[in-house]
Amino acid sequence: MSKATKTAITPTRQEDYPEWYQQVIKAADLAETSEVRGCMVIKPWGYALWENIQRNLDIKFKETGHRNAYFPLFIPKSFFEKEAEHVAGFAKECAVVTHTKLEDDGQGGLKVSGELTEPLIVRPTSETIIGASFAKWVQSYRDLPLLINQWANIVRWEMRTRIFLRTTEFLWQEGHTVHATYDEAMEETIKMLGVYADFAREYLALPVIKGEKTPAERFPGALNTYCIEAMMQDKKALQAGTSHFLGQNFAKASEIKFQNKDSVVEYAWTTSWGVSTRLIGALIMAHSDDNGLVIPPKVAPEHIVFIPIYKSEEDRIAVLNFTKSIISEIKKLRYNDEYLRIELDDRDINNGEKNWQWIKKGIPIRIEIGPKDLENDSVFMGRRDKEPKDKKSEKRLDFINNIVSILDEIQENIFNKALNFQIENTKNIDNQKEFYDFFTAKNQEKPEIHGGFAMSHWCENEECETKIKDDLKVTIRCIPTSTNKETESGQCLICGKTSKRRVLFGKSY
Amino acid sequence: MSKATKTAITPTRQEDYPEWYQQVIKAADLAETSEVRGCMVIKPWGYALWENIQRNLDIKFKETGHRNAYFPLFIPKSFFEKEAEHVAGFAKECAVVTHTKLEDDGQGGLKVSGELTEPLIVRPTSETIIGASFAKWVQSYRDLPLLINQWANIVRWEMRTRIFLRTTEFLWQEGHTVHATYDEAMEETIKMLGVYADFAREYLALPVIKGEKTPAERFPGALNTYCIEAMMQDKKALQAGTSHFLGQNFAKASEIKFQNKDSVVEYAWTTSWGVSTRLIGALIMAHSDDNGLVIPPKVAPEHIVFIPIYKSEEDRIAVLNFTKSIISEIKKLRYNDEYLRIELDDRDINNGEKNWQWIKKGIPIRIEIGPKDLENDSVFMGRRDKEPKDKKSEKRLDFINNIVSILDEIQENIFNKALNFQIENTKNIDNQKEFYDFFTAKNQEKPEIHGGFAMSHWCENEECETKIKDDLKVTIRCIPTSTNKETESGQCLICGKTSKRRVLFGKSY
Repeated sequence: MSKATKTAITPTRQEDYPEWYQQVIKAADLAETSEVRGCMVIKPWGYALWENIQRNLDIKFKETGHRNAYFPLFIPKSFFEKEAEHVAGFAKECAVVTHTKLEDDGQGGLKVSGELTEPLIVRPTSETIIGASFAKWVQSYRDLPLLINQWANIVRWEMRTRIFLRTTEFLWQEGHTVHATYDEAMEETIKMLGVYADFAREYLALPVIKGEKTPAERFPGALNTYCIEAMMQDKKALQAGTSHFLGQNFAKASEIKFQNKDSVVEYAWTTSWGVSTRLIGALIMAHSDDNGLVIPPKVAPEHIVFIPIYKSEEDRIAVLNFTKSIISEIKKLRYNDEYLRIELDDRDINNGEKNWQWIKKGIPIRIEIGPKDLENDSVFMGRRDKEPKDKKSEKRLDFINNIVSILDEIQENIFNKALNFQIENTKNIDNQKEFYDFFTAKNQEKPEIHGGFAMSHWCENEECETKIKDDLKVTIRCIPTSTNKETESGQCLICGKTSKRRVLFGKSY
Repeated sequence: MSKATKTAITPTRQEDYPEWYQQVIKAADLAETSEVRGCMVIKPWGYALWENIQRNLDIKFKETGHRNAYFPLFIPKSFFEKEAEHVAGFAKECAVVTHTKLEDDGQGGLKVSGELTEPLIVRPTSETIIGASFAKWVQSYRDLPLLINQWANIVRWEMRTRIFLRTTEFLWQEGHTVHATYDEAMEETIKMLGVYADFAREYLALPVIKGEKTPAERFPGALNTYCIEAMMQDKKALQAGTSHFLGQNFAKASEIKFQNKDSVVEYAWTTSWGVSTRLIGALIMAHSDDNGLVIPPKVAPEHIVFIPIYKSEEDRIAVLNFTKSIISEIKKLRYNDEYLRIELDDRDINNGEKNWQWIKKGIPIRIEIGPKDLENDSVFMGRRDKEPKDKKSEKRLDFINNIVSILDEIQENIFNKALNFQIENTKNIDNQKEFYDFFTAKNQEKPEIHGGFAMSHWCENEECETKIKDDLKVTIRCIPTSTNKETESGQCLICGKTSKRRVLFGKSY
C-alpha cells in the first residue's frame, strides 16, 4: 500500500507501532481492558482465536501422550515457599487471598472478614500445587512417565500491562511431567519445545527460533529453560513459549519420589512447559498491517465471509438464494481436518463499511455477490493476504473447487512474509561498534526502530550479557538449537574471549 | 447382582450411600480432595468427562447463537455491592484478595504486603463484572440480543464441601445475555433451560424435571429462576442446572441501557444460566452401581477398551495383531458424530484385575481377545450396562457392524433405568400424614432413606413451604413446567387452601 493511500488503522506501524497495536485490537474487536487493574476482557472474536489455538494444540498434546487434568486455583503460602528460587521469582507479583467474607461495615458498605490462618496465593504457575498431587500419584517406576497438562487462568501482578502481551490475568496451558531419569525428562523438555515450534509455524505462521535461555533468563527454579522466539514487525523479539527442564529441584521440594526397578527410592525428574494468550499478541504483531488484523486461516475464527449485495427486493431474494446454495456446497468441505467456518453477513449497513469491517477483523476471504455475479455464475473475491482493492471475479465452480487450496496458499503466504521479514532483519555481527550501531535508534523520536536480531558471539559470561543489557536494553533471546550454523567459533563481542557459537540478541517484549 | 455376591465397591449403596459415592470416585480415579481447603483435583479420567460435557454443550450453545468470551476472575468490591440481593447472597462465602505481594518477614518466612486500596472478590458468579462490559457494548437496539457464554472457574467459600457436588472452586459455564424486551429475555431463559434439559437427557442419560424455583429458592437478584432437577439413587434431588430471568435488576445495577427504535433510551433485560462440574456428581450418583462408575457412552472418556489375553510370546504377537486390525477398522467409525474413543490396555497386570479396573472406571464396552477368539474370528464382549459376569462371544464382523448401535443401546438402557427409578419413586401425595411418612426415615440409622419425590399441592405461600422445610428438611425442588399433568387443582398439604397445581417436593443435595 503506497504512503499516499489512506489506511484503515491510524496510526500506521511506521508512525507509532505500540499505538498501532492497540488500534488493531480495537478495530478487530478482539479484546479490551477491563475496570479491574491489568485484567483484560477477551471479546468473542479474540476468544474464538484462542479456542482455535487451544483445540489444535490440545490435539498435539494428546498425540504425544498427555492427558488433561485440573488443579486448585489457590496455592497455600507454605507450598509456595518450598522452592526458594521459585518463590523469589514470583513473590513480588502475586494476588493474595487473605479473607473469606464480606460483612456489613455499619456504614452502608462492606468490610472484609473471616481471615484465613494461612494466606492463599492465586496461582502464578502451578509447579508447587501440582507437585503436591504428583507426590501422591507417583510411587513406582510403573507410574512413570506421568504426562499431564492443564488449561487454566493465571494471575501475576504485573506493574505494566498490555493486552495479550502482559496482563494481570491471562489464560494458558501448563504441561507438568514426571520421569524416572534425567534423560527422559530432558527428552520431554525438548520434545515439547518442538511441539510449540511446529505449532507456531504450522498454525500461527510464525517462523520461530528455538533455543535455550541463558542462566540469567531461566524460569525460577529450572535447570534449563528452552524457548521459541518470534520477530515482530518492529523487529523486537517476542518469547512465544517456554519449556523447562526442572531437574530434581521441584521433585525435592514436593517430595515426588518413586521406587525404581531395583526397589530403590529415588527423587523423580520433572519438566514444565507453557504457552498463553500471549500467542494472540504475537500473531497480531507479526502479521497485521495498516488495515488491521491478518489471521492465518488455520486459527481464524471464520474463514470466509459472504457479503450479499442488492438494491431491489427481487435481487435480494435471488442473491441470497445463490449465496446460500454456494454456502451449502462448501460447508461440507474441510480445511485442516475442520469444517470450513463460514459467515453470511446480511446486516443492513453500507457495503463498503461492511467490507472494511471484515478486513480489519482479518478474515482470510471475503466474497461479495451481487446480481451481476449471478448472471456470470461467479463470485467476487477479496483475500486478506492481498491489497484491499485487489479483488477478482471467480467462476462459482472454480471458487468451490479451489477454496481449500486458496486457504492453504494464504496460510503459506502469511508465513513466508513473516519468514522473509525475519531473514532480512537478522544479521551476523562480529564487531562491537557495528553491534551497538545496529541496536541504536537512528531516529531519536522512535527509539523502537533498530536493526532487528543480531547473531553474535558471546563468551557465556554473565558480565558481558549484563553490559549489553545495561547499555542497549538488548538481551540474549536464546542460544539457538534449531540449526547447526550457529556452532562456528569466534570471539565474544564484549570481552573478546573465545566463544563456541553465535547466540541470538534482540530487543524484546 | 445378588446380595451374596462380593461387589467391587465397599460399602454398597444400601450400606452407606455417601461413603459409596466417595469410593466410586476413588475407584474410578476421577478426582481427589486437595490440600487446599474445599478445592478438588480433577484427575484425567474425571477431566475427560468434563471435556466431553463441555464440548457437546458448547456445540448446543453455538447452535443457539451464543459466542464465548472471557471476563476477569476478579470483581472489585464496589461492583459487587451494586445489586443488594446479589451481594447479600454471596458475601458470606467468597475469597477476597487484599494484597499483591509476599515479602520477607525477617524470620525466614514470608508475609503479605502491597495492600490493595479496594479488595477484589474472586468471582462467585460474574453478573456484575460482565455487566460492566455489557454496559459499554450495548448502545442501540441493533446491538441486541447480545448472547455470550463464558467457560470459567468459580470460587464460593462453602462451609461443607463434597467432591463435584459442592466445592470451594469448581468449573462451570455461565451464559449472560441482554435483550430489548421482557418477552425476548424470558424466551431466552426458557430456551436455555430446554437446552440443559435436552443435554441432560440425551448426553448424561438423566431424566431431569424442568421447572421454576419458588421465590425463596431464587438466585439472588433474579426475578425468576428455572432449574432442572434429577433424582439420585438415594432418592434425593440434585439441581443440575439453572436459568435465571434477571429482569432489569442487573441492567439497572450495571447501567446496561440502549436506544430503542424510537430513539428512547431504556434499560435492557438480562438473563444468566449455568451448569458446572456438579453434573459429574449427578452422573455418578444417578447411574453408578456397587461395582463402580457407570458412564453414558456419549460422554465417556473412552468407549471401548481392548484387553489382549495371552501366555506365550507367539500368542502375544498373534493376539495383538488381531486386536490392532479390529481397532484400525473401528477407529474410523463415528458415534454421535465423534470418532470412537478406543483404549488398548496391554499392561502387564493380572487380567481379572485389569477387567475390574475398567468396570470400576465405567467404560461402556470391554473386549477381551485371546487365542481362542482368533480361531473363531470372534471377540469376547462385556458391557457396563449388564452384570460383570454377563459376557459373550461375538463374531468379529458382527461386533464391527454393531458397535455403534450397541453404544446407542447402552446409552438408552442407562437412561431408561434412571427414568424407571425416578417414576417408581415419585408419588402424587394429597394427604399431610402420608406426606410426612413418605419423607420420614423408617430406619433411624439411615435417615437418608425416604420415599423419593412427592408431587403435592401447595398454596404458593412461603409459610407452608418453610414449615415443610423445618419439619422434614424437604424443599420444593421446582414448580414443574415440563408437562401439563401438574396443573390439576387441589388443596395445599399444610393449610388446605386452594392450590392451582402440584409442585415437586424432595430432599436435596
